[in-house]
Amino acid sequence: MHFLSSEFPQSSPEDALFHIIPMPMEQTVSYGAGTALGPQAILDASYQLEAYDGTSYPGELGIYTSEAIDCSGDDESCFSNLEVACRSAYQTGKIPVTLGGEHSLSIAPVRALHATRQDFGVIQIDAHADLRDTYEGNPNSHACVMRRIHELGIPIFQIGIRNLCKEEINYRKQHHIGFLDAEAIYQNGIPITILPEDFPRNLYLTFDIDAFDASLMPATGTPEPGGLFWWQALDICRNIAQNRHIVGLDIVELAPKQELHSCSYTAAKLTYALMGISSAPPESAPLQLIEKRFVK
Amino acid sequence: MHFLSSEFPQSSPEDALFHIIPMPMEQTVSYGAGTALGPQAILDASYQLEAYDGTSYPGELGIYTSEAIDCSGDDESCFSNLEVACRSAYQTGKIPVTLGGEHSLSIAPVRALHATRQDFGVIQIDAHADLRDTYEGNPNSHACVMRRIHELGIPIFQIGIRNLCKEEINYRKQHHIGFLDAEAIYQNGIPITILPEDFPRNLYLTFDIDAFDASLMPATGTPEPGGLFWWQALDICRNIAQNRHIVGLDIVELAPKQELHSCSYTAAKLTYALMGISSAPPESAPLQLIEKRFVK
Amino acid sequence: MHFLSSEFPQSSPEDALFHIIPMPMEQTVSYGAGTALGPQAILDASYQLEAYDGTSYPGELGIYTSEAIDCSGDDESCFSNLEVACRSAYQTGKIPVTLGGEHSLSIAPVRALHATRQDFGVIQIDAHADLRDTYEGNPNSHACVMRRIHELGIPIFQIGIRNLCKEEINYRKQHHIGFLDAEAIYQNGIPITILPEDFPRNLYLTFDIDAFDASLMPATGTPEPGGLFWWQALDICRNIAQNRHIVGLDIVELAPKQELHSCSYTAAKLTYALMGISSAPPESAPLQLIEKRFVK
Amino acid sequence: MHFLSSEFPQSSPEDALFHIIPMPMEQTVSYGAGTALGPQAILDASYQLEAYDGTSYPGELGIYTSEAIDCSGDDESCFSNLEVACRSAYQTGKIPVTLGGEHSLSIAPVRALHATRQDFGVIQIDAHADLRDTYEGNPNSHACVMRRIHELGIPIFQIGIRNLCKEEINYRKQHHIGFLDAEAIYQNGIPITILPEDFPRNLYLTFDIDAFDASLMPATGTPEPGGLFWWQALDICRNIAQNRHIVGLDIVELAPKQELHSCSYTAAKLTYALMGISSAPPESAPLQLIEKRFVK
Amino acid sequence: MHFLSSEFPQSSPEDALFHIIPMPMEQTVSYGAGTALGPQAILDASYQLEAYDGTSYPGELGIYTSEAIDCSGDDESCFSNLEVACRSAYQTGKIPVTLGGEHSLSIAPVRALHATRQDFGVIQIDAHADLRDTYEGNPNSHACVMRRIHELGIPIFQIGIRNLCKEEINYRKQHHIGFLDAEAIYQNGIPITILPEDFPRNLYLTFDIDAFDASLMPATGTPEPGGLFWWQALDICRNIAQNRHIVGLDIVELAPKQELHSCSYTAAKLTYALMGISSAPPESAPLQLIEKRFVK
Amino acid sequence: MHFLSSEFPQSSPEDALFHIIPMPMEQTVSYGAGTALGPQAILDASYQLEAYDGTSYPGELGIYTSEAIDCSGDDESCFSNLEVACRSAYQTGKIPVTLGGEHSLSIAPVRALHATRQDFGVIQIDAHADLRDTYEGNPNSHACVMRRIHELGIPIFQIGIRNLCKEEINYRKQHHIGFLDAEAIYQNGIPITILPEDFPRNLYLTFDIDAFDASLMPATGTPEPGGLFWWQALDICRNIAQNRHIVGLDIVELAPKQELHSCSYTAAKLTYALMGISSAPPESAPLQLIEKRFVK
Ligand SMILES: [Mn+2]
Ligand SMILES: [Mn+2]
Ligand SMILES: [Mn+2]
Ligand SMILES: [Mn+2]
Ligand SMILES: [Mn+2]
Ligand SMILES: [Mn+2]
Ligand SMILES: [Mn+2]
Ligand SMILES: [Mn+2]
Ligand SMILES: [Mn+2]
Ligand SMILES: [Mn+2]
Ligand SMILES: [Mn+2]
Ligand SMILES: [Mn+2]
Repeated sequence: MHFLSSEFPQSSPEDALFHIIPMPMEQTVSYGAGTALGPQAILDASYQLEAYDGTSYPGELGIYTSEAIDCSGDDESCFSNLEVACRSAYQTGKIPVTLGGEHSLSIAPVRALHATRQDFGVIQIDAHADLRDTYEGNPNSHACVMRRIHELGIPIFQIGIRNLCKEEINYRKQHHIGFLDAEAIYQNGIPITILPEDFPRNLYLTFDIDAFDASLMPATGTPEPGGLFWWQALDICRNIAQNRHIVGLDIVELAPKQELHSCSYTAAKLTYALMGISSAPPESAPLQLIEKRFVK
Repeated sequence: MHFLSSEFPQSSPEDALFHIIPMPMEQTVSYGAGTALGPQAILDASYQLEAYDGTSYPGELGIYTSEAIDCSGDDESCFSNLEVACRSAYQTGKIPVTLGGEHSLSIAPVRALHATRQDFGVIQIDAHADLRDTYEGNPNSHACVMRRIHELGIPIFQIGIRNLCKEEINYRKQHHIGFLDAEAIYQNGIPITILPEDFPRNLYLTFDIDAFDASLMPATGTPEPGGLFWWQALDICRNIAQNRHIVGLDIVELAPKQELHSCSYTAAKLTYALMGISSAPPESAPLQLIEKRFVK
Repeated sequence: MHFLSSEFPQSSPEDALFHIIPMPMEQTVSYGAGTALGPQAILDASYQLEAYDGTSYPGELGIYTSEAIDCSGDDESCFSNLEVACRSAYQTGKIPVTLGGEHSLSIAPVRALHATRQDFGVIQIDAHADLRDTYEGNPNSHACVMRRIHELGIPIFQIGIRNLCKEEINYRKQHHIGFLDAEAIYQNGIPITILPEDFPRNLYLTFDIDAFDASLMPATGTPEPGGLFWWQALDICRNIAQNRHIVGLDIVELAPKQELHSCSYTAAKLTYALMGISSAPPESAPLQLIEKRFVK
Repeated sequence: MHFLSSEFPQSSPEDALFHIIPMPMEQTVSYGAGTALGPQAILDASYQLEAYDGTSYPGELGIYTSEAIDCSGDDESCFSNLEVACRSAYQTGKIPVTLGGEHSLSIAPVRALHATRQDFGVIQIDAHADLRDTYEGNPNSHACVMRRIHELGIPIFQIGIRNLCKEEINYRKQHHIGFLDAEAIYQNGIPITILPEDFPRNLYLTFDIDAFDASLMPATGTPEPGGLFWWQALDICRNIAQNRHIVGLDIVELAPKQELHSCSYTAAKLTYALMGISSAPPESAPLQLIEKRFVK
Repeated sequence: MHFLSSEFPQSSPEDALFHIIPMPMEQTVSYGAGTALGPQAILDASYQLEAYDGTSYPGELGIYTSEAIDCSGDDESCFSNLEVACRSAYQTGKIPVTLGGEHSLSIAPVRALHATRQDFGVIQIDAHADLRDTYEGNPNSHACVMRRIHELGIPIFQIGIRNLCKEEINYRKQHHIGFLDAEAIYQNGIPITILPEDFPRNLYLTFDIDAFDASLMPATGTPEPGGLFWWQALDICRNIAQNRHIVGLDIVELAPKQELHSCSYTAAKLTYALMGISSAPPESAPLQLIEKRFVK
Repeated sequence: MHFLSSEFPQSSPEDALFHIIPMPMEQTVSYGAGTALGPQAILDASYQLEAYDGTSYPGELGIYTSEAIDCSGDDESCFSNLEVACRSAYQTGKIPVTLGGEHSLSIAPVRALHATRQDFGVIQIDAHADLRDTYEGNPNSHACVMRRIHELGIPIFQIGIRNLCKEEINYRKQHHIGFLDAEAIYQNGIPITILPEDFPRNLYLTFDIDAFDASLMPATGTPEPGGLFWWQALDICRNIAQNRHIVGLDIVELAPKQELHSCSYTAAKLTYALMGISSAPPESAPLQLIEKRFVK
């Protein structure tokens, strides 16, 4: 089933602004963790969405859902398969929207974008910093993905973090990595402008759905309490998209559960909302609302 | 089991202010969706409630739980069975409290109230506008129920909506339907007075439990993130009940799940709280709190 | 939804051989046990059945599904409501098919049949003997229902039992109650003729679904391993129906579970198969097969 | 993850006897049924298998797991994508092993095999006959797939059926379709030779996992009691493979569930066992055991 | 597995500031309620925690996890076993951290602390007042535990309550018990100083996890909507710990569920965070943040 | 809660023939596998058992349930804690009944028995041979436990196996280990005498509950289809106990699941049945039944 098939026919890759790319990658060999089932669950749930996302009709710009990336090989071959798909999207001015799968996969669309020699930064919305050098001996682990990205020389900014280790705290400090952690959002609300003025104009957005509060998103590997609620997440994404362009994005770490179809649906709705934000003209954000919010 | 049987004996219909009416209607013939199991799950969970709802003791005014409405026939015969039960409640000055079942059922208590020639309006608390003309070819669908009600010439007001389609947006505009959508509540809080001054004094309240945030109420057909939390919902209901009378109400769309007894319990607790708000003297609302709230 | 609504329209009570009577009785006040949800789950699942039950088309004889019996009062008032419904069925030559609900409910259809002054016996298919005098202080408990029936002077026969207490063993011996226990079925197979020659020609059949093996029917209050599998259950029911008439029946103790729709479906399929056996001409049983079976 | 990656590296397509082809096709647009998640769940569970299947080491003949077939288009485009993959397998003498997904998909590997102009028959192991002309208006429904195959002029044989409708009974009779239904297996055991002497020497095997008893395989769309247990299923497959060649196969209709990882594992183990049977030299079956079995 | 075994080795009792004491007590004999499984589930989930709790590294002060308390006897013998373990902790200046199990168990660590003749008060964070004299005939019920504690002459303070009965309201008034109920927190936020100036300097903290909102913590016996979210809970605990010492604590009433590992993890994370707050120097709280919060 | 507390009071260790020893050991550090929750789930479920096990009243010989063994240390310290408890039971002529927990724990009761210098053999009922030298680098893994036992020079016999690897097949052959594998039981039934004449008269019985068919026991780490059903398991255990004494036993690998309370109950019922078989006078077995069975 292609994304939002209840509302829009499958576009050709050429006619679609959005290339939905299912990436059922799950490194951990333990039995039954479940992120490999995430992309399909998002596609299934997208059937229940409306064409209208509350602000605009992003589907009218065309959606093409590719077949699932081959994840049967080793890490590097998985990444490389995804990289090919993303490169082809970037080269034709499309927005690749990768559905995970484990967070480790983000290295691939980022590498593909890096190869275009565009200037860009990566926004990570996540409960975890993912800045370790290795994790359980694996440098390709989901817990290391932002480290790998940062090592490519790409600026990163972290939002929603509420679980990190000493190594990650040190790396952050040493490398002056920008962040807006979850407790600060609780204590002070969302600032008028999240990103520093000199952060690149082009953004790649990686949204680890464990950024959501554990109450809203229990269907993930390591749910963390104290996270984002729905409107906060949208506010944050609109905020970073002010005067900037989101040129690629991924939604990762959904591990669907039987009684929690609400989680699969929420991931699908988030995907569509991010597509809307990515394609909105920069001036469309309701500025006066943002001001009010801050006063609160 | 009758409602709140742990605290109050079953009253006779004559001695009870509240007539609880189980309505296990589920149109969609797909296997296992589950709203038909909603009424029984609310009755079961009500056993865990206290007589005190946090403000008053509504059960002291008498609760009569009727047997379940016969939902074995076609839509119209289901509606008509419920209409009979509600009419009998209205005629003796009782408050019918229908437990759903699909949202489509609300047409029946509304028709019964309409037949009394009283002036009244309908408050809908829901994630969805339910204003379509038909849905999957069915004009009696839960997605059309507010359209059907509005077509009877009854004023309606919508609260908590966060998913609607173009047809519904247009219908709203064309017919000047009042609303307080979910994002506005997030951005601006609850206004001092929700309802317009000229909205009727008598209210029928239909509460689709998907109005709650998907984190609090995953046990429903189409849970939506970005919805109401508990105290917000109570605040809203107390707010609309200021200087007005709730003369009938329904709680619909619970689809109970095994591991989520919290949802069945929350629906039962909501039912009892709405009974308390419906029977409270108008002056009982803690006004100074409401003011404080708005300042926030 | 009425029983098997995908294949047959709702008949009028007069035109239907079968009166399906939902009886959502659940005495135990503990939170969430779930037999009260059984009848609705069977009705929902019946939508998936075929008109053909593998042998005949019982639905062609007419099915009328009544609304659910009012179970909001005390035990005796529940029983009495069901008794009225069954009496009306018997008086017009119909077969009442009660869907439970707790096993305790069987006293009602038996009392109604007893009131007709017909000679009949009761066949109980169950994992438990249900022959206690009282259970947790309650003589109306599901664990006492066969004792209550036997005390009315009605002959009973028990099949599939594999859990009983000393009191029940003694009662069985003292009153020469016939039985075919589960271990005997495992060790020796099903005998050519289960019932003693002098057992009454008219039968009331009560099928507690925990008679099935715990692997096939985990969705019940006290699942027991070592029970019946599907074809064994059908064989047994056809066997007792040889040269006898099943004039009323119930299927009790389903406590539906989210991931186990197989159990609700199996209960629905059993209900329909028992309707087929009840309405088959006595000679229809495939005799030669039964012989073969025994040789095995 | 590729099939059985804990024991064998991914082979190249050229070096692998088995081509595992994930086919996450799910036509029914209803929300959350789940067969689309089947292929991934089988691949995940295969990690727990041993290289030894109890009889042989089929993995030593090479396993290649392709990426998932693109199922985002309409029925015909899904089929056609799978057909291409199977044709390429057949042309190089490989055995395509398609993992479903809905049963409707079987038309594709059968068409691809038909195109080779080989003489072959199709063995269907299933609870349902799948012989309808259309189902809910759709001739490509899973309930019609064997009809579509038979209409191509290919001989079919059905095993394990226990739910069919009048139309299907008639079609069977009219077209002299061979079968060994579930009740016959219960009553008489497995015959020494299941297939008629003149059935083709080459077989395509389609195994709908609802052929298993509902106790063993509740994780499917329409589980049916009275089905096959594990060793019976293997016995049957070894029996049909006597003196014949299985040249292609599929395992369909797994709808994985959270608490029932046993079902995903059983489907994976079945897949591997069928690979073993398909690649065993015809004489390898333990003949004397089969004889003993029949005596029983 | 000992608490947080992924980060710290098991300390000896002498070297550990924290004595984790699993207490799988579950009085209610009903089948399958599940709090007896709580302690083990917290220990299992603690494996996923980091050494850093967001503020400090409490594990560096040493953690000793004792074996589970013997709960096979009657209530009093269970309490007495736990009392012994706690007394031994207090006597050596350690902080006992009891993992429940039912709330009734709190009487034991409180009694043990009382026996030290220290002056202290008890902070209860809970959805329920637990102030009944008896419940279902049992004075040791979880619904009576705070009454039993208060009757020992120990000052108590209640936070987060949103469900109580008339008897409890009266007891509160009569005995001038301090409280900060859940609705007040919603309406007014958290006050700068929660505890009255004259409340004892030493605190025993009992945290019934149903104090959390039902959305965040459905895995408990009686989840209640309208409760605390994560950061609110931490704010409250830091607030009460200002200028005071937490000398013992318990986390009770987790009833783990299969699909809700988020709840077990949240309980483990709370346990560790409370250990951090208990061992922080009083001046460590971020005062300026607290002020900001109140302005909000 | 102690074992079977609904029927028997806790005995003192001295007065009890059976010492129930909960052993919540779970080596694998992966999150949420669940065997650590097994012992408590068995104790909880035992509340539903009857005093009569279908043959005798084993509880009348006294049951003492000890507190859970401390499993917070490394493997060896866990084993050693259990060994102490078992030694104390053996020394006073009691039967230790250990509830697991992972299968690896069986080494401890066996070592304790070995230390008594009694002559005995070990019967393993399991789906897996557990004869590897190491597994994932760990010689104490559950997959190695029978190898470790056999290396002590203790005779072993394996029943129900249906999943093993080449290394295990070779070890079996080399060391002439006796077995009765699952497929042989399916094909030929249970032999009149399972154990070789020269197998020791004293037996230690270790029952891995994955020996049961996956349909009956999905709540375990690696459920395998093709296993034992209830009466087969009892038959086998009675068979081996003919003319021999079971002097100690364990039931391991239950990983309880929310919707599958049937599995916890089945494990509890098995425990009690094995206690009955262990304490029955050797002549009590129904010999004529066993003969009949074989004829079948
Ligand atoms: Mn991440
Ligand atoms: Mn994360
Ligand atoms: Mn609605
Ligand atoms: Mn809605
Ligand atoms: Mn029973
Ligand atoms: Mn019964
Ligand atoms: Mn099929
Ligand atoms: Mn089928
Ligand atoms: Mn409490
Ligand atoms: Mn509480
Ligand atoms: Mn084992
Ligand atoms: Mn095993």
